[in-house]
Amino acid sequence: MDDIAPALQSAAPDQYARFDMPALGFRNYWYPVLHAWQLRRKPRAIRLLGEDIVLFRDGGKVHALADRCPHRGAKLSVGKCQFPGSGTISCAYHGWTFDGAGACVAAIMEGPESKVPGTVRVPSYKALERSGLIWLFIGENTPPAFEDDVPNLIAEGDKFFTISASAEYACNWRVMTDNWTNEHHGPYVHGNSPELIFQPLPPFNLALSVIDHGNGRSIGVRGPGGINQAEFPGLGRFPRSSWQRVMKPTGRGVRGNWEQTVAAKEHGVLTPTQTRLPGMVIVARPTGLYFLIQWAVPIDEHRTRVFNINCFRRRGALRELYDRVHYAVWRGWAHDWLFSGQDKRVVESVVAGRERLSKTDIGVIGWRKFASAHGHRDRAAVSAETSTRPPPVP
Amino acid sequence: MDDIAPALQSAAPDQYARFDMPALGFRNYWYPVLHAWQLRRKPRAIRLLGEDIVLFRDGGKVHALADRCPHRGAKLSVGKCQFPGSGTISCAYHGWTFDGAGACVAAIMEGPESKVPGTVRVPSYKALERSGLIWLFIGENTPPAFEDDVPNLIAEGDKFFTISASAEYACNWRVMTDNWTNEHHGPYVHGNSPELIFQPLPPFNLALSVIDHGNGRSIGVRGPGGINQAEFPGLGRFPRSSWQRVMKPTGRGVRGNWEQTVAAKEHGVLTPTQTRLPGMVIVARPTGLYFLIQWAVPIDEHRTRVFNINCFRRRGALRELYDRVHYAVWRGWAHDWLFSGQDKRVVESVVAGRERLSKTDIGVIGWRKFASAHGHRDRAAVSAETSTRPPPVP
Amino acid sequence: MDDIAPALQSAAPDQYARFDMPALGFRNYWYPVLHAWQLRRKPRAIRLLGEDIVLFRDGGKVHALADRCPHRGAKLSVGKCQFPGSGTISCAYHGWTFDGAGACVAAIMEGPESKVPGTVRVPSYKALERSGLIWLFIGENTPPAFEDDVPNLIAEGDKFFTISASAEYACNWRVMTDNWTNEHHGPYVHGNSPELIFQPLPPFNLALSVIDHGNGRSIGVRGPGGINQAEFPGLGRFPRSSWQRVMKPTGRGVRGNWEQTVAAKEHGVLTPTQTRLPGMVIVARPTGLYFLIQWAVPIDEHRTRVFNINCFRRRGALRELYDRVHYAVWRGWAHDWLFSGQDKRVVESVVAGRERLSKTDIGVIGWRKFASAHGHRDRAAVSAETSTRPPPVP
Repeated sequence: MDDIAPALQSAAPDQYARFDMPALGFRNYWYPVLHAWQLRRKPRAIRLLGEDIVLFRDGGKVHALADRCPHRGAKLSVGKCQFPGSGTISCAYHGWTFDGAGACVAAIMEGPESKVPGTVRVPSYKALERSGLIWLFIGENTPPAFEDDVPNLIAEGDKFFTISASAEYACNWRVMTDNWTNEHHGPYVHGNSPELIFQPLPPFNLALSVIDHGNGRSIGVRGPGGINQAEFPGLGRFPRSSWQRVMKPTGRGVRGNWEQTVAAKEHGVLTPTQTRLPGMVIVARPTGLYFLIQWAVPIDEHRTRVFNINCFRRRGALRELYDRVHYAVWRGWAHDWLFSGQDKRVVESVVAGRERLSKTDIGVIGWRKFASAHGHRDRAAVSAETSTRPPPVP
Repeated sequence: MDDIAPALQSAAPDQYARFDMPALGFRNYWYPVLHAWQLRRKPRAIRLLGEDIVLFRDGGKVHALADRCPHRGAKLSVGKCQFPGSGTISCAYHGWTFDGAGACVAAIMEGPESKVPGTVRVPSYKALERSGLIWLFIGENTPPAFEDDVPNLIAEGDKFFTISASAEYACNWRVMTDNWTNEHHGPYVHGNSPELIFQPLPPFNLALSVIDHGNGRSIGVRGPGGINQAEFPGLGRFPRSSWQRVMKPTGRGVRGNWEQTVAAKEHGVLTPTQTRLPGMVIVARPTGLYFLIQWAVPIDEHRTRVFNINCFRRRGALRELYDRVHYAVWRGWAHDWLFSGQDKRVVESVVAGRERLSKTDIGVIGWRKFASAHGHRDRAAVSAETSTRPPPVP
Repeated sequence: MDDIAPALQSAAPDQYARFDMPALGFRNYWYPVLHAWQLRRKPRAIRLLGEDIVLFRDGGKVHALADRCPHRGAKLSVGKCQFPGSGTISCAYHGWTFDGAGACVAAIMEGPESKVPGTVRVPSYKALERSGLIWLFIGENTPPAFEDDVPNLIAEGDKFFTISASAEYACNWRVMTDNWTNEHHGPYVHGNSPELIFQPLPPFNLALSVIDHGNGRSIGVRGPGGINQAEFPGLGRFPRSSWQRVMKPTGRGVRGNWEQTVAAKEHGVLTPTQTRLPGMVIVARPTGLYFLIQWAVPIDEHRTRVFNINCFRRRGALRELYDRVHYAVWRGWAHDWLFSGQDKRVVESVVAGRERLSKTDIGVIGWRKFASAHGHRDRAAVSAETSTRPPPVP
């Protein structure tokens, strides 16, 4: 035998065992959970960070409650808005009715004299509709204002409009965020992406360094210089050819002097890409006219919903029309479908176990350490974890 | 956050933890398991109370054995009746042949001289065909006569004929029987049922009381008076309108003086509905001309087969023809499909966990206590359970 | 109740508990894993003895590696042969490139200066292409030469050509090999097989004895004489009729004087059928012109890939053409599809648990004891098992 036979892979220690990143995701953040158009008159069940939640839209607002009636356990998502306009949902079984804050306001089958209302609650979640998405705050701590928590590109609806796509990935959310730490998978995974076919590939090399943005929220990874093609002795050249790469790079060309760009000066995006808590990447154009936010939203331990939120600078109705058409005919297909699909194929194949990290994984390690140090947990969870938290990663 | 975040629901204590109702069902009862037409020449595998059983029909009778050959473990349901008319089934692997009582009568591949016959048995079940259904007795105790165990409406084939339908429900059997305890889900779940659309809805209110029939088998729930419509402050009226409810109620209208009805006096059905061990409901018409028995037959912990057994008083061939046509064109669709389907949707959504029971759940609590106290177990199981039985429910 | 109710079957002791046959299969053997035509330019994932393995074909050879890149855990089977002709496979994520021996020869995204090559390995498996099949050696010990390990009928490609078929069986490999120990299931399971319909059924009876071939690899089971039909009192005759069984038996007729056959003298096949480690049966024709090898290859604990390897004596191009046509129009259908399908239906129905073995199971017991005593394990596993090996079977 050429080598030692593999131990059963599932028995190997997980690649996240040394880090303090919860498998179900960081809590006490606002997360996008649905496209606004996906929630109409019918209540809808979702799962977020392993919790089953019913969303409903009534009385002009979106509401979110734990998806289980405390009375006899039926799923509230099987119920309906029995009293339209009142902002309530009624359980399908006996009509126990809850407002958006989770208070029981009627137990219909007990009649109006029932003593149940006022004494029963169902856990509720702060919910918002913004930028064409429905957002939930999940966690036990006091929720911050939406605008203080999400990237300003989303919060500033007057400056940017957004177009979003999403897909379910069969992987843990951490595997997805690792992929966003500028570890040079790009030239390899996306080399034949239609987006890049006439552009130079991004460079790859050994030199990477992590830039802490100092805000407790995001880091960047600097990769100065590098090579675009190389000869590997005994194997051949990678990439095979580059004669067709004649176009100017779009948005990935500027590496030096980022601090002087519109993106940095006007929108505070401190590096061309940044990985941000609770688990997203922001890819910036230096012009500040376009940003892409990709957000890994944990469904449960084994599934993640990835939102691609395209942020366009508002520049008048005509330009918005152009941007929307351009997205519909090109970018939605070339990036949010094909390019992201190339990542999806790889990250879904990742098998948990030991890793052999290397110099190009400096961004991965930097992100895991940063997230372990700064990611929010429930207050209770934090204190409970204190004694069992793994020793600091060197 | 508006409320405390839900703990993982599967970790919550089960709603049946306080009661002594086995998750796999009460044993030592006769249960319906198949429609007679579903068993023809080919042996058929079923699961009942978690046990895998093969049914076969040969020699003019129905037989039931544990579905595993004791020789090498092949499923007997893969075998066949190799010697038609002998009332035996032969294993598909080596032809070990068992009679309906489970005795091995031949080990074909060992020839007629084999010493195996007479020394090997497979567990067997008493089986019967009655009223168009196949019935099994499951449990270790001595089986009672079929007629002494099942409702007389089924046992008295000379007085009643039956039409049955069945469906598999993705829930535990106890969730289904809870649904039958007259806890007022009816007006809410079935309000828009075609059966009720022109009839008044059954009343709902707070006043319920449990009536123990004193036979160790069934209870009823009394719900005197009540309201048919109410205004809920700040929400609106339920049901929204009732102008269309002009028809006379069918069978559900009579609440007072039940003791004087034909159903009570002639057929011993002591309340308009009764929940009965091992897990069924009997809904009676006061005229005694029609009864509906709905029976929750545990398949395993997570699945239940519900039989709707419609019992019609025999009143001559012409009337039977009318009843059968009426069932085929109306009741089979309106009740056994649509009305029962409304229950199915709700009970399948019930998530195990803590409950917040209320006054209208008096029937549920009454049934659970009654069943815990009177349901049969295996003799061995009973003594084993004695020491671990939960304390009495107050 | 007629008999004692069955205990939950899954709680019963496994039929292999008394024997030392690993559920995942014996290690340190060559196994067939794919038909050669199933592996083309794209790498392909298989599972063998519970291990996930990627096969790829490049540089004129077949290679096999553990299907997980040690860098970040992506499946190598999602990658490709990035440098055709170099005999390497590259991971789809960052292009780490491994040769067929498992050595990392490039970490593409780190450039040619990377220090990773030469310091990282992935477990590899010896792989070969022979007789139209792809073969792997799995285990920690030093692999023997292919020719010394597999049956000579396969190894001697100059004397025999082969035609192979395979199918996935939903059972443990041990259940399949039990089926091959001449325990008389043949006349019962295959009685109506088109292959046997005009031939006499093989005899069945009580007299069986095990013949150890003394080579540590295989045993045979002798079944002298026996009966072809019998009357079972009170049941009837089995088989029902035999008037149509007029043809000469093919290959199964010769029972006496096997030592003088060509099969025995020239090809060393010591009994008409033999069960052989790691888990196969060889069925011989006395003429030595044809042999069938059926090989149970463990996928994991619950699935087995069964290869039917038909070995034909080379007798010139014209005869080979005849054999191939005959296989295509008759034997491939009648045996490898229908006849094997009859076994598949039975073995897939076997439920683990206690057995009631009998005289006709002497071959089964003999095989289990033989395999327990002679089957190979990893050296480490053997010593670890020494202390926990079950006591010898009496």
